[in-house]
Amino acid sequence: MSAETPSIFSKIIDREIPADIVAETDDLIAIRDINPQAELHLLVIPKSADFRDVVELAEEPELLAKVVKMAGDLARQYADGEFRLVFNTGAAAGQSVFHVHAHVLAGPTLDEGKLV
Amino acid sequence: MSAETPSIFSKIIDREIPADIVAETDDLIAIRDINPQAELHLLVIPKSADFRDVVELAEEPELLAKVVKMAGDLARQYADGEFRLVFNTGAAAGQSVFHVHAHVLAGPTLDEGKLV
Repeated sequence: MSAETPSIFSKIIDREIPADIVAETDDLIAIRDINPQAELHLLVIPKSADFRDVVELAEEPELLAKVVKMAGDLARQYADGEFRLVFNTGAAAGQSVFHVHAHVLAGPTLDEGKLV
Repeated sequence: MSAETPSIFSKIIDREIPADIVAETDDLIAIRDINPQAELHLLVIPKSADFRDVVELAEEPELLAKVVKMAGDLARQYADGEFRLVFNTGAAAGQSVFHVHAHVLAGPTLDEGKLV
């Protein structure tokens, strides 16, 4: 179930390539997306490379919950606390890095009528 | 932290209003979205009305994980297993019912460049 190693996120975690890091804990790192699709567009990423996607991450409920809590904390810190949380699973669903990551989006452009 | 009661989802769970129910367990119900935005557009909903949004749901990691696992199971059952999982938190982020629900989207229209 391991993702290909090292992913771009593993390289960011290991400081082998730069990123705009906005939060870091023992388990998680959060960075700004390099191609933002909203006023705020962050990625919350478990440091472990063991989880390819959110379905695999759900095998570790506490870690999954930490991802969500950090997303909420960052949405309050960097926006007004209202945010969209997106996990893409599989290339056909838009997943481009197979190291699980949550998209955290906030800003005036969000609309429930635009989820895809 | 309770949502307004009863939400439309509570009424669906109680069979007070109809819905196209695709899965149900003791904890969860899954229905087809009445305004689908992709070939497959389901909602996975904890039956408990105690959780307004995904940040509140993260206080119960096991239940959060069950939502994700059901989403993955349904994506395999009704599509090819590749899917987008979306939680909107707050009206400004497109949340319209304040009883936590996960959008499960699959189909050929998904693109990582279109998250909002």
